[in-house]
Amino acid sequence: MSVTAAKGFTAAGIAAGIKENGNPDLALVVNNGPRLAAAGVFTSNRVKAAPVLWSEQVLKGGLVSAVILNSGGANACTGPKGFQDTHATAEKVAETLGLNAGEVAVASTGLIGVTLPMDKLLPGVEQAAGELSEHGGEKAAIAIKTTDSVHKTAVVSSENGWTVGGMAKGAGMLAPGLATMLVVLTTDADLDSAALDKALRDATRTTFDRVDSDGCMSTNDTVLLLASGASQVAPGYDEFAEAVRAVCADLARQLIGDAEGASKDIRIEVINAASEDDAVEVGRSIARNNLLKCAIHGEDPNWGRVLSAIGTTSAAFDPNQLNVAINGVWVCRNGSVGEDRDLVDMRYREVAITADLAAGTAEPVVIWANDLTADYVHENSAYSS
Amino acid sequence: MSVTAAKGFTAAGIAAGIKENGNPDLALVVNNGPRLAAAGVFTSNRVKAAPVLWSEQVLKGGLVSAVILNSGGANACTGPKGFQDTHATAEKVAETLGLNAGEVAVASTGLIGVTLPMDKLLPGVEQAAGELSEHGGEKAAIAIKTTDSVHKTAVVSSENGWTVGGMAKGAGMLAPGLATMLVVLTTDADLDSAALDKALRDATRTTFDRVDSDGCMSTNDTVLLLASGASQVAPGYDEFAEAVRAVCADLARQLIGDAEGASKDIRIEVINAASEDDAVEVGRSIARNNLLKCAIHGEDPNWGRVLSAIGTTSAAFDPNQLNVAINGVWVCRNGSVGEDRDLVDMRYREVAITADLAAGTAEPVVIWANDLTADYVHENSAYSS
Repeated sequence: MSVTAAKGFTAAGIAAGIKENGNPDLALVVNNGPRLAAAGVFTSNRVKAAPVLWSEQVLKGGLVSAVILNSGGANACTGPKGFQDTHATAEKVAETLGLNAGEVAVASTGLIGVTLPMDKLLPGVEQAAGELSEHGGEKAAIAIKTTDSVHKTAVVSSENGWTVGGMAKGAGMLAPGLATMLVVLTTDADLDSAALDKALRDATRTTFDRVDSDGCMSTNDTVLLLASGASQVAPGYDEFAEAVRAVCADLARQLIGDAEGASKDIRIEVINAASEDDAVEVGRSIARNNLLKCAIHGEDPNWGRVLSAIGTTSAAFDPNQLNVAINGVWVCRNGSVGEDRDLVDMRYREVAITADLAAGTAEPVVIWANDLTADYVHENSAYSS
Repeated sequence: MSVTAAKGFTAAGIAAGIKENGNPDLALVVNNGPRLAAAGVFTSNRVKAAPVLWSEQVLKGGLVSAVILNSGGANACTGPKGFQDTHATAEKVAETLGLNAGEVAVASTGLIGVTLPMDKLLPGVEQAAGELSEHGGEKAAIAIKTTDSVHKTAVVSSENGWTVGGMAKGAGMLAPGLATMLVVLTTDADLDSAALDKALRDATRTTFDRVDSDGCMSTNDTVLLLASGASQVAPGYDEFAEAVRAVCADLARQLIGDAEGASKDIRIEVINAASEDDAVEVGRSIARNNLLKCAIHGEDPNWGRVLSAIGTTSAAFDPNQLNVAINGVWVCRNGSVGEDRDLVDMRYREVAITADLAAGTAEPVVIWANDLTADYVHENSAYSS
């Protein structure tokens, strides 16, 4: 159901010919109102793709009537021509659907440094507009895939008559602030853009921003939340924010589960930190340690590499009080050898690492990561050639 | 010649049985004076191995009469027992050679979280002492190898009658502040520990601290510089510092050239930064980008991943003025497509990336890194099992 689970939205996904292999590569999501409220969160990479620069401006107005997304090319590092192409794409959507181009968000994903084939993309907009449907969410989710092996969607419906649904793509360059991913969330809840913005930022902070597949931050990350108001229900903030968080958490978990070349999904929980910031810093440092990621791939409970990663942070801790559990076995106690590492069962895809900083009472923080595999190397050494 | 190139030093390298495969695993370096001046630089990881904690204290006195180094076990994260073992090792060296234990530095390398077999190490100290020789530098360099495929030594001799020589080990966990490496440098120059300390810090800052093989910082890094004064020549600071820098640069380059599983050595030069700190931050960010490291492995001049890495830093730059050359071809100009990427020849082991920030006049900074390969994954997923 994806982006068309909520009332008031239509979507389409088509093959415009942007991808040379003929796979679907263009998605269109339209908000039919009555509201056109929207919020967005974008990459914190300072090298931003043209569609990010464009959509950041669109979102400042708090109104989005349509989102056009393409795979097959990131339109990043493409200079003035790239920005003109993004602008022309928004204009084409606006012209085709009778909208204001200033309310059309654009998102792109694919290889950096290559301009888009506009001779294929622009006719594709017309085709997508002709195929818009209340059942088009699935096709839209499929059309934004790059190296994703599956498309990702999630839906939460409230018993009070409103829904939050969404789609995501992303399989590499997944790292905080955000992952390389495009996400469009829709809701028929009747809320203004300020409420959407707060709910979206609260949600991404603890979901997409805590996914770290390979430590690489994209130039194109875009997460949008559009509200149609079509349910005519205005939920309370907490209930709505929790629904948005749940959909984001679901999609974030799907992204980690489909990361390029990965054979393990690593759930890193940092407990008893002095502060949430400390816990996040430690979690990310563990998540990015290549040697540890290799060890997990080899089903080796190499807790020394966890301690080594913790030691590079500025978080508060005493090295002699650190404890580390892998899949529930406390292999490191008080900074030294703990329970027998042979007790750790690492046969399954999900691996849980718990790092106990014994430094305070902050709430636990969870960072999701992947292992490092020969398949990851292979996939990423051949991507553009 | 290694640590015995300079006059006044003897060394030995033996197989004490610490390594189960019977390879050499214990090295001893002795300063026979007349001076016993020394300086040391250690890992900035906050989780420090027992020998690092011990040797940091020894070096505070500025006098080192002997260094005992073992491979086959890092003695890190081994609790109070680990520190007692380091202490006992220093005492054994002191007792055997008639020295003060407070002037015996200890260094260890190998797996974290495993205690050393003292029943083999202590008799090994006696054996090594019995084999000390003015020609023992090569054997000492061999005995500190872990996953190193070759031993590493370097020597610079001044026409004014003094010499700086050294040995290094390290093939993984190579990242700034320092690499996972043990380095012992010796000189017969007649200088005090203050001069040695300044020369060593100046040298490591631009050599070992600018090597980043895999982004992983060790718990055991130790770089020592010992002066015997045996040449009876007191060189000027600049001349001496340059010799120390040259030996460190030579050894650092050898470390990168022998990094685990690597197929490429990547020389990342950052030019026209606003400050040296900016240049170092950008160089390290590029050095640690797994996607770029995979691309280099695949001989793919994927400059988009260079820009993406630059974009995650806080350095001063305008995204639209960034230029990137790979092996001399400016594939990115003004943040966009530059010269034809097909002109880039990447068949050779050394790959040069130049990142022009166009933001200032800081001196160029060079960071050395390696590519990311399936062999790296294989070697590090099987290391402890």
